[in-house]
Amino acid sequence: MPELISEHACFGGSQRYYRHASQAIGLPMRFSVFLPPHAPGAKLPALFYLAGLTCTEETFMIKAGAQRVAAELGLVLIAPDTSPRGAGVPGETDDWDLGVGAGFYVDATEQPWSSHYRMDSYLQELHALACAALPVDAARVGIFGHSMGGHGALTQALRRPELFRSVSAFAPIAAPTQCPWGRKAFSAYLGKNEDSWRQYDASALMAGLHTPFPAGILIDQGLADKFLADQLHPELFEAACRAAAQPLRLRRHEGYDHGYYFIATFMEEHLRFHARNLGVDKGA
Amino acid sequence: MPELISEHACFGGSQRYYRHASQAIGLPMRFSVFLPPHAPGAKLPALFYLAGLTCTEETFMIKAGAQRVAAELGLVLIAPDTSPRGAGVPGETDDWDLGVGAGFYVDATEQPWSSHYRMDSYLQELHALACAALPVDAARVGIFGHSMGGHGALTQALRRPELFRSVSAFAPIAAPTQCPWGRKAFSAYLGKNEDSWRQYDASALMAGLHTPFPAGILIDQGLADKFLADQLHPELFEAACRAAAQPLRLRRHEGYDHGYYFIATFMEEHLRFHARNLGVDKGA
Repeated sequence: MPELISEHACFGGSQRYYRHASQAIGLPMRFSVFLPPHAPGAKLPALFYLAGLTCTEETFMIKAGAQRVAAELGLVLIAPDTSPRGAGVPGETDDWDLGVGAGFYVDATEQPWSSHYRMDSYLQELHALACAALPVDAARVGIFGHSMGGHGALTQALRRPELFRSVSAFAPIAAPTQCPWGRKAFSAYLGKNEDSWRQYDASALMAGLHTPFPAGILIDQGLADKFLADQLHPELFEAACRAAAQPLRLRRHEGYDHGYYFIATFMEEHLRFHARNLGVDKGA
Repeated sequence: MPELISEHACFGGSQRYYRHASQAIGLPMRFSVFLPPHAPGAKLPALFYLAGLTCTEETFMIKAGAQRVAAELGLVLIAPDTSPRGAGVPGETDDWDLGVGAGFYVDATEQPWSSHYRMDSYLQELHALACAALPVDAARVGIFGHSMGGHGALTQALRRPELFRSVSAFAPIAAPTQCPWGRKAFSAYLGKNEDSWRQYDASALMAGLHTPFPAGILIDQGLADKFLADQLHPELFEAACRAAAQPLRLRRHEGYDHGYYFIATFMEEHLRFHARNLGVDKGA
């Protein structure tokens, strides 16, 4: 069972921070949970949120302003950390876009990363842990995220639609095999064989599918986002969705940048989108 | 004019960070502003928010989730830093409750603090600056804050009701002359003569007044706040309000602590309270 580190009343529910010994990572990991007010014994729909480069399990819960609407809709929110901490890989804290805070939600296959940088497996472990230790209905779990975590959310949902029934993203790295951040991380974590990268590229994954999320995928993207041109490539994911007959609502917002002021602005619509997909009556 | 450091689209408005050369402080100071969507040339009601110990001009804008409702109500939000930075007072960063991040919104009279630690005068300077440089209606400005900043908000409003027409607080240090935080700070900043402290004690100030805010004062206090028993003393302010015939809505909330999850939970009600007091139609 995870260890409860701290707990704070919030919008009638409970904001919690947990630590647990992760099998997948081989190190202690932290995650945060918002539990909405609920009846004893209830099993609730839940949303995983994957954060971006340099973030922790705290970022989303502090900055995104999601708890108000999650409390209203009865959604559990779960946010993991963005990488192992304390793996002891030489140089793992040297770059902000590789190593600590930059796990990219993949299982590294290359040394020295492969012993602990196993965030893909970790998300499966955390999904199971959440369904066992928290009042979460395993049949009603969705996933969303931002930037590197938007990449994580899209790829997790496409790889494991049986675990994640609803997916959205804010400014995702939508084609990581085609951008500097993704190529740097995948080279380090996955090695030189680019074929192995495609399993973690949302646009590449979508190319092999047919309408995996018939209720649609929601993506918000700011047009004043300084990373849009070089790193994010939503147009590649948009084309892949079109080819796969996957409904996509990609909204481009004039003036909005890459940060949490952008995310907070559109958070409520994402939560209501997921609530509808997960069968929450109040989400309509 | 203040220098614009950064600007972010947020809820249809603009989240801004400014720097300026403060006359009162004698050093550069930073502050943050949220501008709601508004018509060109409009003069808007505004709210100053004063943050607590260790905070900066960024804390409120990141953590309180206030922009959504401020955008709806057309309220400008203005948050100063909590102390001078770079004053060079020996030991000013040694304690978290004195010096940097702990200006207590007073004008220090004692050396070595008195050269720069002049947050009381600074708030008058910033009020004037906001009315001159931002689309702020000087006749419709309110103030609120948290903990040390709740103390600041209450004392500023009681000292200058002509500047601040509406006041509320979250878990304020409501009688600083009677608690360890206040006595430590006032001893350092104001010296040994406790008579000089009373001008910065909301409960003491209220004792000399009669119904200064006929529309009432709103205070929210969590009952799981670890600072409540020793540091905050809302009951002393409550008694002072009763004696002064000052309407006070002091709400005590089971389970809530001293942090921003508590503040965010009740933020919307504070914004609507101020909007009503400042004559915003939509605030009803």
